[in-house]
Amino acid sequence: MTLPIYPWEAALGAELTAPTLTEPVKVKIPLGSKADSRLRLKGKGLPSATGGHGDLFLTLHIVMPPMSTEQERALYEQLSKQQHPDPRSELLAAMQRR
Amino acid sequence: MTLPIYPWEAALGAELTAPTLTEPVKVKIPLGSKADSRLRLKGKGLPSATGGHGDLFLTLHIVMPPMSTEQERALYEQLSKQQHPDPRSELLAAMQRR
Repeated sequence: MTLPIYPWEAALGAELTAPTLTEPVKVKIPLGSKADSRLRLKGKGLPSATGGHGDLFLTLHIVMPPMSTEQERALYEQLSKQQHPDPRSELLAAMQRR
Repeated sequence: MTLPIYPWEAALGAELTAPTLTEPVKVKIPLGSKADSRLRLKGKGLPSATGGHGDLFLTLHIVMPPMSTEQERALYEQLSKQQHPDPRSELLAAMQRR
């Protein structure tokens, strides 16, 4: 299953309520989480042949909130001015090797 | 294909270089872009039977940069204090209807 989280929840970590197959479950997002990393919820998966339940994996999916306010845009501006590697550099390099 | 972008590139819009099947292409991310929205690059897709090229669709994938600095964490803190809907509310509601 996929768990939508906001960028600041990934960056700062968060405790939140996640939907699972059957019930809402409190989960802890670790500080510095990356897109597509997985949380493992023990015993929250499908029933197993032996009577228990398997584990459920939640894949973190970074999503954006609805329209940003001016104040939020100013914060994103400041974030954009920090030094970050190009998130496309590996894909661009792989493309050029083909 | 998937195009990894940072949260501020989605929020503010950006002009950037995207990998495609054959060559890097300049693309424009619209302001206020959402995760999983698609950009259509005319004529950058697979060769078509009629001799031209089809369109290429890039799906926006929001990613986080490597470890945040203290300054960045302060900015995320401020973003987290703005009012946003719970990005899990629809999934939680759908789960409870099952």
